[in-house]
Amino acid sequence: MNRQELIQQIKEKKSFLCVGLDSDPRKLPECLKDSDDAVFEFNKAIIDATAPYTVAYKPNLAFYEAQGIKGWISFEKTVEYLRTNYPEQFIIADAKRGDIGNTSSLYARSFFEEVKVDALTVAPYMGKDSVSPFLEYEGFWTIVLALTSNPGSHDFQLTEDSEGEKLYEKVLKTSQQWGSDENMMYVVGATQGKAFENIRRIVPSHFLLVPGVGAQGGSLEEVCKYGMNSDCGLLVNASRAIIFADSSENFATVAGEKARDYQQQMEKELKQHNII
Amino acid sequence: MNRQELIQQIKEKKSFLCVGLDSDPRKLPECLKDSDDAVFEFNKAIIDATAPYTVAYKPNLAFYEAQGIKGWISFEKTVEYLRTNYPEQFIIADAKRGDIGNTSSLYARSFFEEVKVDALTVAPYMGKDSVSPFLEYEGFWTIVLALTSNPGSHDFQLTEDSEGEKLYEKVLKTSQQWGSDENMMYVVGATQGKAFENIRRIVPSHFLLVPGVGAQGGSLEEVCKYGMNSDCGLLVNASRAIIFADSSENFATVAGEKARDYQQQMEKELKQHNII
Repeated sequence: MNRQELIQQIKEKKSFLCVGLDSDPRKLPECLKDSDDAVFEFNKAIIDATAPYTVAYKPNLAFYEAQGIKGWISFEKTVEYLRTNYPEQFIIADAKRGDIGNTSSLYARSFFEEVKVDALTVAPYMGKDSVSPFLEYEGFWTIVLALTSNPGSHDFQLTEDSEGEKLYEKVLKTSQQWGSDENMMYVVGATQGKAFENIRRIVPSHFLLVPGVGAQGGSLEEVCKYGMNSDCGLLVNASRAIIFADSSENFATVAGEKARDYQQQMEKELKQHNII
Repeated sequence: MNRQELIQQIKEKKSFLCVGLDSDPRKLPECLKDSDDAVFEFNKAIIDATAPYTVAYKPNLAFYEAQGIKGWISFEKTVEYLRTNYPEQFIIADAKRGDIGNTSSLYARSFFEEVKVDALTVAPYMGKDSVSPFLEYEGFWTIVLALTSNPGSHDFQLTEDSEGEKLYEKVLKTSQQWGSDENMMYVVGATQGKAFENIRRIVPSHFLLVPGVGAQGGSLEEVCKYGMNSDCGLLVNASRAIIFADSSENFATVAGEKARDYQQQMEKELKQHNII
């Protein structure tokens, strides 16, 4: 999916919501416990209930790898289900990969050619040759970690160099030479508040993938105030706050309602910023 | 495997060689092409031929994930084969994982409880809560990326802060507060030469996992000169230079010979440093 198509989807759906399919096998509703592939059944129900209100889905690989081979099957079936039934949805594999050049090439092949997601999250610590192999795939997206939502983001990402430039700023500036706003996005945690203002100075046009709304405590309003650009430029992710909002047999219905709540807030923001 | 057992192995085998099982499906010898699980058959033959000369194996997950579910099966079978037939070998899953706390916990569970490797490589960009969950597993090891072997290592890892401290130095110093030399190691590329001297000032006793000897051009002699400590303190990894040294039916025999060559050089170094 290219940039224009993504923007079009956001305008049509009046939403820039991404649902994080962090489908922890230990947290699934009781009613699915007897299923052969409870994770996939859960995802299917969540997707069907939330799809009208979202433009993207983001399975985090950790929750699938935790079940080994069984987990990989659930993951691939989920991507296939989305591809077949909701081809307009943008699929992000949240894998935070990154290795030396020839190894990153293999990860790229795995996710873009085999599993066929639209985008992959990538860690920048190893530099250019660890990220570039992903950028060689036309029509696909590389989403580089910049300023993450977790407490540990302060340990290294905020370190200032001798000219006062923070590490995440250096990541934003340097990596812009590797790709463009047509094939790169950045992860910026919703918990980072006013840092969005600074980030928009460095990357005015790139899309930002924003986790941390909901369970992690980030504010959607603040993210939009400082992070939205004239194309929206945001994919805001909520995981636990939607998918685990209810643990009864009504889990999917409640997830749909939560997603709709986010969509309605997002519609307001899009109108306020004259995007729709 | 604990630190003392690892040191004991190094002394007994007179080797600190780690064989990187970067078993790229596209590069396997012709003679295995008809096998149902060529990657596993390849690994098995390589392991049998090289085990006398090595103390560790390091499958890089990228090469397995590139084949999706099939690759995960090959990976798990390889670990199982090592566990059963060579229980004295130290197994490192080279996965370079790292995510927010609750997600890293799942990766830890996946690799330490399900697959049962001894150690996992971890990327430090997301800070403490992305690394700590791995350290909670007693008897297992977390290997943090510090100064990697690839050209892109210069992009961010060498960035100096206002006091002249480089990012990789900060990673070494900060992360020492999270674990100890009993459960943490660091990745330092063999291509980094004299930087080892500096690294040993910061982490005198930790084991270093050193990739980049062989195909990537690092020098074993230099690594030992600047990086070896009184317990050896090194696991030097070679991948392509051993496993793909020959593509004929003799591939395993040649791999064994290459591993023995490394072992003999290593024995010399261990003697020269009065470790054996």
